[in-house]
This record gives sequence, C-alpha cells and structure tokens, in this order.
Amino acid sequence: MQLTLGMEGMGKMDKKIKLSDGDGGADTQRLIRNVFYKYFNDPLYNDMSDSFVFEAGYKRLAYTTDSFVVKPLFFRGGNIGKLAVCGTINDLVTAGAMPLFLSAGFIIEEGFGLEKLHIIAKSMSDVCKQTGVKIVTGDTKVVERGSTDGIFINTSGIGKVLGTYNPHWIKPGDEIIITGGIAEHGTSILLDRYDLGIQTQLKSDCAPLCCIIKGLYESLKHVKLMKDPTRGGVATALNEISTMQGLDIEVNEQMIPVKNEVHAICDILGIDPLYLACEGRMIIVAEKGCAEEVLHQIKALDNCREARIIGRFISGHYNMVYMKTIIGGKRIIPMLEGQMLPRIC
Amino acid sequence: MQLTLGMEGMGKMDKKIKLSDGDGGADTQRLIRNVFYKYFNDPLYNDMSDSFVFEAGYKRLAYTTDSFVVKPLFFRGGNIGKLAVCGTINDLVTAGAMPLFLSAGFIIEEGFGLEKLHIIAKSMSDVCKQTGVKIVTGDTKVVERGSTDGIFINTSGIGKVLGTYNPHWIKPGDEIIITGGIAEHGTSILLDRYDLGIQTQLKSDCAPLCCIIKGLYESLKHVKLMKDPTRGGVATALNEISTMQGLDIEVNEQMIPVKNEVHAICDILGIDPLYLACEGRMIIVAEKGCAEEVLHQIKALDNCREARIIGRFISGHYNMVYMKTIIGGKRIIPMLEGQMLPRIC
Repeated sequence: MQLTLGMEGMGKMDKKIKLSDGDGGADTQRLIRNVFYKYFNDPLYNDMSDSFVFEAGYKRLAYTTDSFVVKPLFFRGGNIGKLAVCGTINDLVTAGAMPLFLSAGFIIEEGFGLEKLHIIAKSMSDVCKQTGVKIVTGDTKVVERGSTDGIFINTSGIGKVLGTYNPHWIKPGDEIIITGGIAEHGTSILLDRYDLGIQTQLKSDCAPLCCIIKGLYESLKHVKLMKDPTRGGVATALNEISTMQGLDIEVNEQMIPVKNEVHAICDILGIDPLYLACEGRMIIVAEKGCAEEVLHQIKALDNCREARIIGRFISGHYNMVYMKTIIGGKRIIPMLEGQMLPRIC
Repeated sequence: MQLTLGMEGMGKMDKKIKLSDGDGGADTQRLIRNVFYKYFNDPLYNDMSDSFVFEAGYKRLAYTTDSFVVKPLFFRGGNIGKLAVCGTINDLVTAGAMPLFLSAGFIIEEGFGLEKLHIIAKSMSDVCKQTGVKIVTGDTKVVERGSTDGIFINTSGIGKVLGTYNPHWIKPGDEIIITGGIAEHGTSILLDRYDLGIQTQLKSDCAPLCCIIKGLYESLKHVKLMKDPTRGGVATALNEISTMQGLDIEVNEQMIPVKNEVHAICDILGIDPLYLACEGRMIIVAEKGCAEEVLHQIKALDNCREARIIGRFISGHYNMVYMKTIIGGKRIIPMLEGQMLPRIC
C-alpha cells in the first residue's frame, strides 16, 4: 500500500516520535501543531484549551467511545485512523444520531514513524471532511519503545439524536436488513496480518455510515434498532439483539450478501464469515410490513447498494438465532465463544 | 500498598485477562458484566447499547478527552483508574464546566490480573460517587502479551458550562492563584517508579476538583482562566498561558507552596518541582483587585486550604515567565524542553 506523503511543513522535526513528544512541553506542542492541527485544523479547534465548548442547541445527544488497537495498522481499504473515526461515527448512527463532534486520544510508541502518523491523521481528516464531523478535542501520549504496538487510538463522539426508535418495541414479524456484504473487514485484516499470499481485490468495508441517518430520515419511524456488526460479526450482533429482546431470530442463509472472495478465503481458513467483523455495514430492524420501504431507501445510498432483508424475529423461548440453510436445514448460530480473530478494530 | 479486594461475584472467571475477553463475544460480555457493570452500574448505563443518549437541557456543554499511561499503575495516593477519572473531570473544570458524564476506554494486556482491574474500576467508581459524575459509555480491548504496559485508560467527558470567563480578557495586573502544594503527584510517581528507598508520608495530590466550580459560583465572574498544571508542571502551564495571552508573568518564588518532602526529594534528584505534575491542583487567573476575594472562597474548599496568590501578569514584549527568587534575583522560567519525567499521567 501507498505510505508516501509530502513531508512539507514538518520543519526540523525528527522523523521518529520521541518520548519527549508526549511530555506536555515544547516538543508536544510542536507535534500537535505540525501534525494534528495541520489535519484537524478548524476554527472550533482554535486555542490550546483542553476542553471544547459548544452550544447544545439540540434536544437529545448521543455519546459513545471506542478504542482501536487493530493489527496491522495499515490494511487493504484503510488504516487505524480511518477505522477510529468511522467506528465512532457508526456507533453514533446506531443511536439514531447524526454525528457532530469527535475526540481523538493517541497513544504512540517511541520511535513510531512520523510519516505514518501523518498518513493516519490525514485519513481521519478525510473522513471528517466527507461527513462534516469535526475532531474538536484530543490528547497525545508517547510510551517507551516496546510498551505498545506502534499506536493505539481512542475516539469518543457526540451526535444529535434524530431517530426516536426503541429496541423494546421489537415484535415477532419485524424484519432484519443488512446494508451490504459481510465480513469484508475481518477477511482483509486476516489477509494482511498473516500475509497469506492470496491475490484478491477484496478490501475492508470500513466506511462512515452517516448517510443512513440522512437517507432514512422519512422512514426512521419504521426503524426499531440499528447495530453495527463489528467485533464478533453478524452472528454476535444478532445474538445480542435476540438476548436483549427475548425473541428468537430466523436468518435466511441464501439472503446474506457474502462476496465470492470472502467465501473462498474463509473456506480455505476454516472460518465462518458470520463471525468476522464489518466496519461499514449496519444491521437495521424494520417494523413488520415496512421493511421493503426501508430497504428501498437504503439501497439508494452509497455503500448500501447490496442491502438485503436477511431475517426476521419470531416468538421463541430460547432467545436464539437460527439459520435456514441453503440446503433446507436449520442450524443454531451461537454467540462467539473463545477467541476468533482478535484486534480487528 | 493495598491490592486486595473481595473477589465475590466473579463466578468462574479466570483470574487473568484473556485475549478472548476483548473479542466482543461472550467472554467480553462476561467481563463487562462482572467488572464494569459491578462498579459503574447505573440506571443510565442500563442496556448493551454502544451509545448513551441524554437530554441536553443545558445551554453550553464542554467536551474533553485524555489518555492515561502512567507507570507504575499503582502509586502512593492513587492508581491509573483514579487518575483517569480525576484528570478528565479537572479538564472540564478548567472550562468552567460542572462535569456530568464520562466515557471510559480500556486497553488491557493479555494476562493482566483481574483483581487489579477490579481495584482500578472501583477507584474510578469511588471518584464518581464522590462527585456525582457518571460513567455512561465504555469500551474494552485486550491486546497480546507484550503489546502494552498492563493497562491504558482513555476517558472523555461532558460537562455543563457555568463560567463565562474568557482568557482573552486577561490584562496586566491580573493575579495568579494556585490551589495547593505543587509537584506532589510527579514526586510520588518518581518515588514509586524508581523505588528510591526514601521514607516519606508524601502522596499524590490526585483528586477531582469539581468543588471549585461549586465553591466559586458567585466569584466565577472574576475568574478569567483556569488551567490544571499536569504534564510539564506549573512552569509549562504558565508558559502556555503567557504565550497565548502575549503577556509576561511574574511569579513570586516565596509564595509557591512546596512541601518540605517535595523540596528535599527534588533536591536529591536534581529536578525542579516547577516542572513536575500536579493532578489535583488548579491555576486560577483572577481579575486585578478581586484575587483576595477569590482566594478566600478557594481556601474554604477541601483540597485547597494551601491556596496562594503566586504571581501576576505584567506588560512585556517576550511572553515570558519570570521568577522573583527568594534571595531577590529574577530568573526566566522557560517552557519544558526535552524529556523531564514521562508517563506521569
């Protein structure tokens, strides 16, 4: 992948991160000015204050956080910076919220390449520009060589809540939509982590999903729940929903969008794509009878052309997820137990 | 220090953190339920949703973030958990805000002792109970053994802004208050990190400073700036203020509260306490002529009995910080350059 980027504006900075860059003194201020202000520069982010103050001109706000420790840091389709911004944006979307502001906390290993930090920060800035979300507060720590795996990023986010849905309204017959092909992020991480020598165009689905809030505005009243199937994949997300609602879920295997490359790679590795993470897909629960209308609007959005209705809620005593298989059978899809594929986000 | 804590309610959990505890599956949910819900349990934090939704019934909100990588994790007077909650609370206070909600993101090393995690989470919960602040959203990642130094914590926070001060109103003659003895956190970290064999009662000043917002309510109109002198200490904080305002600062050495133990230990080590972190002190800039009134109210608060007026702003061309020394001289206090004492927060 492409790691070069103009080093203009870096002045006399060394090309590796030093411990003193995280001490809060002059070096830290130079690092913040030369890297983070360069990309996150905004009139909002206009002084060296530790806190960002904003007018809360919205009735309800959503608030969330996520830490990102993905390995490798750079993967086909993205890097830890893009992931950190998309992940928190998408968590806000699950709350029916339009993302507004993000925080970004960096923990960087001494000796980490400054050029890589530029690329990561630029990716974060690119997603912000694309979505109108603003990084308004941040923090940088540097830890001794060997104390971390290059860089960890935490983002938190605030959004204004537009949806009024409530998962407790879910009833038997309500339908489940997935907005695109599953397991593309998890499979990409696998390929890049273990250098499997498989030639493929596949890349991570990592993307911000703000478009769903805008695009569904009219139909949000028919939506009862949104959940992004990240760690643990679609299987784990559906199990969580089923347990929370006290209902069974029936999934139709034939309807689940899985790219051929994902199928092939997972077959080789003996991994079930249902348990691999997506980072740019959403599970949407639509009211019985309205799922086609919601699906129609979803399919008009970027990144969501492959959206499908994949299953529905049914009455049941066990809060389980069942799969109607292509060959006509029925199998239980359990919660992920033990270790599947760690550090995918 | 005391590391024991009842292990009740931990059921069949192993006593070490496993990689699968961070995979987002059943193990992660057990960890969250058995540790984090136990201490952060609140009606607000009532479902497995990734986002917390609240009514924004306040005109202006402040938003901040900080990552904590302190070494050692447990030190005299606190631990990384207490520090993570106090640090973000105090950053909100610097914005004139009453802290309301926190997020907490944990990055934990495989093999980390579960008992230590309980102690850390309990410390966080204790500060929350003491201050009325609520941890409302969180995230847990586990990284392979050797990928991190035990545990890193990121907190972000939201507060309602009560103060209307603006640092750009600062003028020559305005006075500078410090709310207590300096460098007690940094010195404590030094003692515990290097096991210097020095017998002392000294402990970190790590504490939440919400009391300042409540206690100063009437006099907040006379306050032009608050800043917590953490990394880089009082010297760095004053230099930042001086640069930002385009004014010189004159500090009176005799007035700076430094405990005898801090003086003695810093003398032995050849370190200037002006550059060592506080984690429970605040620098407050009060309007010329009103500093005594502000000081009077500050001294009535817990943790602030040793508050003093330590200096004032003066006209100048160099945006520098000068110290009037006890023996009658005058010396420049520069910004921290290079590495002083890393990983103190």
